[in-house]
Amino acid sequence: MTQYIVTGCAGFIGSTLVDRLLANGHGVIGVDNFSTGQRRFLENALTSDHFKLFELDLLDLDALKGAFQGGEIVVHLAANADVRFGTQHTRRDLEQNTIATYNVLEAMRANGVRQLGFSSTGSVYGEAKVIPTPEDAPFPIQTSLYGASKAAGEGLISAYCEGFGFRACVFRFVSILGERYTHGHVFDFYRSLRDNPNELPVLGNGQQRKSYLHVQDCVDAILLALDRMPEKYNIYNLGVDSYCQVNDSIGWICEALGVTPKLVYSGGERGWIGDNPFIFLDTARIRALGWTPKLSIKQGVLATVKFLQNNEWVYGARA
Amino acid sequence: MTQYIVTGCAGFIGSTLVDRLLANGHGVIGVDNFSTGQRRFLENALTSDHFKLFELDLLDLDALKGAFQGGEIVVHLAANADVRFGTQHTRRDLEQNTIATYNVLEAMRANGVRQLGFSSTGSVYGEAKVIPTPEDAPFPIQTSLYGASKAAGEGLISAYCEGFGFRACVFRFVSILGERYTHGHVFDFYRSLRDNPNELPVLGNGQQRKSYLHVQDCVDAILLALDRMPEKYNIYNLGVDSYCQVNDSIGWICEALGVTPKLVYSGGERGWIGDNPFIFLDTARIRALGWTPKLSIKQGVLATVKFLQNNEWVYGARA
Repeated sequence: MTQYIVTGCAGFIGSTLVDRLLANGHGVIGVDNFSTGQRRFLENALTSDHFKLFELDLLDLDALKGAFQGGEIVVHLAANADVRFGTQHTRRDLEQNTIATYNVLEAMRANGVRQLGFSSTGSVYGEAKVIPTPEDAPFPIQTSLYGASKAAGEGLISAYCEGFGFRACVFRFVSILGERYTHGHVFDFYRSLRDNPNELPVLGNGQQRKSYLHVQDCVDAILLALDRMPEKYNIYNLGVDSYCQVNDSIGWICEALGVTPKLVYSGGERGWIGDNPFIFLDTARIRALGWTPKLSIKQGVLATVKFLQNNEWVYGARA
Repeated sequence: MTQYIVTGCAGFIGSTLVDRLLANGHGVIGVDNFSTGQRRFLENALTSDHFKLFELDLLDLDALKGAFQGGEIVVHLAANADVRFGTQHTRRDLEQNTIATYNVLEAMRANGVRQLGFSSTGSVYGEAKVIPTPEDAPFPIQTSLYGASKAAGEGLISAYCEGFGFRACVFRFVSILGERYTHGHVFDFYRSLRDNPNELPVLGNGQQRKSYLHVQDCVDAILLALDRMPEKYNIYNLGVDSYCQVNDSIGWICEALGVTPKLVYSGGERGWIGDNPFIFLDTARIRALGWTPKLSIKQGVLATVKFLQNNEWVYGARA
């Protein structure tokens, strides 16, 4: 039994990880400020004697130091995960992703906790010149404040590995899909089609090529990599070995819902400022550890639609 | 006549740039908190009607917004520039390099100033796999909090270029030498030899390979690149096309001072945690703009020794 610390424990990926860790017989210290996390996602965890919840903000370093007491491995998932709105509130990514990560590292140091998993993002590659993009792609040029803030978090973590003997796995995700999903394109399209099944506004030209991974496959990869951690500092791309167009995903969603809306494109290659029109990661490195995703992109999208159909309360919760 | 804003205007590079800009007929708004900057370096500038000094800290965003009024181009040089001591005060690099850079960007945005030069560092490459290291070297792994904080600043800047129509030049320096130099290996060795000319403690094995550039050559490159700024976001390595061993530099310094100390090595490939034992940058990109450094590493070291001999007050000032 290992004592894990999970930040963002009430979030989409966080709560899924917490349930898995508890099911595997581990203890979990969960931290969340419930800014986007959902208490209902912790219903199961809160029945366990091995789960301890701290409701606090990562910007409160003193409280964080207290919460981390007795932990052995941190999985730092708390973040501002909305890529699109960086330019509307420029401080948010800096605070919630970069400074919060610094605080996590300091709270670890204060408690002698030296193992870390970190949810970074494929967005750190900016508009990658090499696709599928490997972990050692050319020096990236950030195109979003979100990507910049996550890349900054990565840099802090590797410096702590060098300076303080930490060991870490950094995970560069494609977009994650599946049960408990509460933001992203399926979330937005589902709501839009529920409100008006006859017309669907689409950002960009719908030809953006993106890759997606199911949350259970994501959690599999995180736990495998943390278990192995071959180097002091490890970076793993996480994704399936294919991509789809936004239009493909729209087709699957509409088919599942039995609707045939008119698609109204905002136009242009990019959905928003800093959007990356083609994300596809080379995942050979994590596959070499023996991981392989079980669900395809289409299966992930359909599982997400089904979750949203059965849990429309998430829309009210995020309002 | 262009109105420049120079942060860190009382520093080594900053004050040299200010004097040059004023001599070229431009106006300068200078910002410094005098934490390491020296008033004596501004003696000449303060006699000019075209120089306006704001004594403030970059962490004070409101004051910064006021200071930036009327500026056209920002050269952001203010920073914590001590690479070695990151692990002793982990918050310093985050605040003075990353958050301060964010504040500079916000103060620019508030004032409609959209052109920026930024002093980054060759340390952002970590321990580079390709040497001489080009600007598009493989995705770096940070080994120091200093490098991490500067890389984070770069990411913010490129995201602002994408999101807010800024144009920027990021300069990745090797170590800079010359008149007004107030920290670094020549500074440390000179003091050590002044105190005891018979014995010189050397961090590491003295075989670290480093490159250096004279401050006037550095200022030449900055002004040329800001003048051209061919792309929205431009990155330039700045350095000479050679490197030396720390032992070579020791030899030049000792010869200039007429001393023959016993060298006492602390041992190991690295001078300190996160030290990079081999820094040598590929500068083809800035050379393609027509720049070429005028002074060699040895000439830079000797100019620095001469400056220190004539300005021993800098040791008291930095105490």
